[in-house]
Amino acid sequence: MEHKVLSFENVNITGGFWNARQNILRETTVWAVYKRFKETGRFDAFKCDKNAKIKPHIYWDSDVAKWIEGAAYLIKKSPEPELEKIIDGVVDDIEKNQLPCGYFNSFYIAIEPQNIFKNRDCHELYCAGHLIEAAVAYAEATGKTKFVDLMIKYVDYIEYRFKIKGDTGFKTPGHEEIELALVRLYKFTGERKFLDLARFFVLERGKECENALTDWSNESYLQSHIEAKKQETAMGHSVRATYFYSSMADIALLDGDTELKGACEKIFDDIITHKMYITGGIGSTRHGEAFTIDYDLPTETAYSESCAAIGLVFFAQRMLALTGKKKYADLIERVLYNGFLSSISLDGKSFFYVNPLEIVKKNHTRHVSVNYSDNLPPMTRFEVFECSCCPPNIVRFLGSFGSLLYTYNDDGIYLQQFASSEAKFNINGKEITLVEKTSYPENVKISLVSSEDVTVFVRVPEYLGNSYVPINLTAGIEKTIEFEMPTMLIEGNPAILSTAGKVAIMRGPVVYCMEGCDNEGELFNIRINKDTDFIHGFDKELGVPTITVDAYMKKGNGALYSPMSYERQKTQAKLIPYYAFANRGENDMQVWTLFE
Amino acid sequence: MEHKVLSFENVNITGGFWNARQNILRETTVWAVYKRFKETGRFDAFKCDKNAKIKPHIYWDSDVAKWIEGAAYLIKKSPEPELEKIIDGVVDDIEKNQLPCGYFNSFYIAIEPQNIFKNRDCHELYCAGHLIEAAVAYAEATGKTKFVDLMIKYVDYIEYRFKIKGDTGFKTPGHEEIELALVRLYKFTGERKFLDLARFFVLERGKECENALTDWSNESYLQSHIEAKKQETAMGHSVRATYFYSSMADIALLDGDTELKGACEKIFDDIITHKMYITGGIGSTRHGEAFTIDYDLPTETAYSESCAAIGLVFFAQRMLALTGKKKYADLIERVLYNGFLSSISLDGKSFFYVNPLEIVKKNHTRHVSVNYSDNLPPMTRFEVFECSCCPPNIVRFLGSFGSLLYTYNDDGIYLQQFASSEAKFNINGKEITLVEKTSYPENVKISLVSSEDVTVFVRVPEYLGNSYVPINLTAGIEKTIEFEMPTMLIEGNPAILSTAGKVAIMRGPVVYCMEGCDNEGELFNIRINKDTDFIHGFDKELGVPTITVDAYMKKGNGALYSPMSYERQKTQAKLIPYYAFANRGENDMQVWTLFE
Repeated sequence: MEHKVLSFENVNITGGFWNARQNILRETTVWAVYKRFKETGRFDAFKCDKNAKIKPHIYWDSDVAKWIEGAAYLIKKSPEPELEKIIDGVVDDIEKNQLPCGYFNSFYIAIEPQNIFKNRDCHELYCAGHLIEAAVAYAEATGKTKFVDLMIKYVDYIEYRFKIKGDTGFKTPGHEEIELALVRLYKFTGERKFLDLARFFVLERGKECENALTDWSNESYLQSHIEAKKQETAMGHSVRATYFYSSMADIALLDGDTELKGACEKIFDDIITHKMYITGGIGSTRHGEAFTIDYDLPTETAYSESCAAIGLVFFAQRMLALTGKKKYADLIERVLYNGFLSSISLDGKSFFYVNPLEIVKKNHTRHVSVNYSDNLPPMTRFEVFECSCCPPNIVRFLGSFGSLLYTYNDDGIYLQQFASSEAKFNINGKEITLVEKTSYPENVKISLVSSEDVTVFVRVPEYLGNSYVPINLTAGIEKTIEFEMPTMLIEGNPAILSTAGKVAIMRGPVVYCMEGCDNEGELFNIRINKDTDFIHGFDKELGVPTITVDAYMKKGNGALYSPMSYERQKTQAKLIPYYAFANRGENDMQVWTLFE
Repeated sequence: MEHKVLSFENVNITGGFWNARQNILRETTVWAVYKRFKETGRFDAFKCDKNAKIKPHIYWDSDVAKWIEGAAYLIKKSPEPELEKIIDGVVDDIEKNQLPCGYFNSFYIAIEPQNIFKNRDCHELYCAGHLIEAAVAYAEATGKTKFVDLMIKYVDYIEYRFKIKGDTGFKTPGHEEIELALVRLYKFTGERKFLDLARFFVLERGKECENALTDWSNESYLQSHIEAKKQETAMGHSVRATYFYSSMADIALLDGDTELKGACEKIFDDIITHKMYITGGIGSTRHGEAFTIDYDLPTETAYSESCAAIGLVFFAQRMLALTGKKKYADLIERVLYNGFLSSISLDGKSFFYVNPLEIVKKNHTRHVSVNYSDNLPPMTRFEVFECSCCPPNIVRFLGSFGSLLYTYNDDGIYLQQFASSEAKFNINGKEITLVEKTSYPENVKISLVSSEDVTVFVRVPEYLGNSYVPINLTAGIEKTIEFEMPTMLIEGNPAILSTAGKVAIMRGPVVYCMEGCDNEGELFNIRINKDTDFIHGFDKELGVPTITVDAYMKKGNGALYSPMSYERQKTQAKLIPYYAFANRGENDMQVWTLFE
């Protein structure tokens, strides 16, 4: 059954785990990203000065647009005049430099006006999409419509060139995103033509053979191998893919298109049963930043891009709205506490683009006689990267985090993700305020009180069960639901090479990992006692919970190979949440550990 | 104490394991390699025709030279008029095309005469070295000295240009080999100037900074980072390295140079305690075909080049002569039955350049949306490759295999490697014929009978002990020594990532492996019962022994991740000798298996 999603606009995160992260976002992250984007010329690029010292990149518009979108979410919640001033400046630049036809892309206007809409992989519609999303968010936050008006002019031009005249060098975008943006613009304006254009881009895709992206990829890399409705497995570049699947779900919902819905369900199941790290990370190879074959989930070379984690949540959230099925909320939880959260440092200043599940430091220096690097993922987060799609994506994702908490329908309210919050619903004309208190993920204890009598269906976390527990709230009377939060050893599917003979440790939704600085010897030589108790502690330096387990280390005799002695040394191993790794410099790290 | 090595000239392999392989060499391999070299233009290249349709490669001379050397060994043992005719043809071509100064290299004479001796990495001295070795071998086999005379003229020119005039573009060779050849030429001719030139190339190396090979390597890649005497660890390209270390050992022996000897001992120990696969394979990365850091021994991407295995035996054999220490013979045995023998198919027709220790077939097709290959090693042997150094190296190595069996000194005879054979010694003027009978490596049972009273020190294989057992033979009386041959589970050093939590199985000197076609399910999901019995069998199709062990398979429930159930399915796993893998098409394969 379809659910409505309660927008973050109606949800205030009031305390606890996610409130702390939103505070860091507002105080630190949004400014840290702004500063690095300013320094690197990304903001000045909007001046479209072809003689500027720094040449813009084709995807810089999207970097800034995502940052604006995130900043708009912050403004929506609480005034931020400085942010507003910055954004107004960008909008003025766009107004000044937008072509008379409506086209806007800082790179193409400044550098290659002759190549507008000629190259499928040059991210023009992707940038357009992010600008549209930013414009809508900014209008919703401030009431200022100049930005969105400029973008509507641009969209009209896009519609004219791509759908009406059809004289562009390609038919559907190389990197999806505009589809999502057009749905959003439709919702904001109510104008069906935007939805129609979104549908056009979704349904035309894969109908005819457009040029393969480059000579190093095939059509599946950008989800153009077959029509959307016929797609059943997750293929290609994982960010493009999840954005596309999200837009498929959008259209399925808005059009009541059961074929598209069916395709989305198959693709989603393919991801979570074959192609996902335990952290919810997806896209297991750096080559094409792509999905690969089933069960191919290497740990040290895991790509697991931060933007793909975010894209997967977008997809799941839309599937939750489309079907009301719990598994989508379960998946969101998995990504949130692991593969998403690992992408940002605890201090909110630096970011992972790639989120490995294992670091063996010495492997980074194995080539001692040749100048070759295995291109293993970086061992620490960076403040900005050349391709800096992830940091502003994290800004907008955390800024709108509240949208993930609640859905609702005629039966009542569904509590999907746990966070201390105050939420305002309007269900069948009835205003309901719901207050939630929880220390999740410290424990599973949730207190609810509402302004009206209402049933709240509380999601039982995946590790505890497969149902929603209905709580019948009487106005003004607080009720509490509580479960024991288990710590568990987790095994991978026998078809996964990288997890064979190993276990991971999860406490509730949080995947734990070992870091070199907390443990002696090689991490890969630690074997967790499979009957271990779990000792729970707290790391004051990191400010995160810890788990200590009984383990063995294999004792060596110095020889390279010897008859099996089975000599072991008893030891203990300390683990921290995966999301907190790499906050103490370069370290060995592993999620999956041998057991005995 | 120094040992003398009994040359293969005085050893006839009369039966058993190695006799069968030498028969295949004579009947099949030497012709298979000839045919492919002929087809690919390698023989015609000696005509030095600059207008030839097929352009020669800079290292083709060495390919043919190694083949000639191998063919000469066969001729030495038993007439092969056809081989002799082919070789005479090549020698005639060399005579015809050798420059008046003595220089000969088919590529440089035909294609780039203006660049002679200008580029350190163009393998001229490497090719020269192999031609010299071939010439000496051919002279020793046939008594024909034309080839060696031509090469002496060439060496005189090399000496003039490199040592006397010093006007070449480099001082020491980029790829070592000529050092070994010059020592051999010295031994053949008795002329000290050849030894002096060998010593020059060995000792000058690393004294001053010569150009690094290319922009992708550093000086250690070609063992030029420091002087030979100061080297303590195995570095760089593993074939170059082992050839160089072999020549260091040669000079150490001939000059009584204890510094060089000490360097060799340190380097050898570094290899066998830090940088060697259980198969005796070395050089763990394809990037530079090089040694890497300690304990870096990945299995699936193991490079472990066939020529490097051969080079390591060359080095060990010289160290055995230099020191008389058993560990060098132990290492030779490890390489022979594993990393060397895997390089040639059971039918003798095709070859591995790279010898992986694990094949996961599905990983070869993981990139489904981009045109990218992880460059995993080929899963089957090829008849010839572009860079075809290994096949003819295998020919000459197997052809002179008899040289590995016996050493001797004033104390008596040392039986180092086991093979049914008839060997003729001249110890202090006394002629001794020793007849050995054995089915090794089927069992450790060796019968010896000699023509004179003599003490034979039989090497106790590494897996049984660390000594030589003296057998006092009375002329004409056969004595037999017998040990139980153990089958053992072997563990790797705890610092090795790829062997953590795993065991390998060895029976005697032979490493075993699992192949996909013999076992159900993913090999990496098999866990050997650590208390298993070993059931010994025989695979008729392959003609090799087999071992069957008790094992478990993890049972899955279909989910990608689940709480640890520890449900196992009892199974059995079948193993075959590692040297016999990849003789039944493409297969999953692994040497190291999980255990429980």
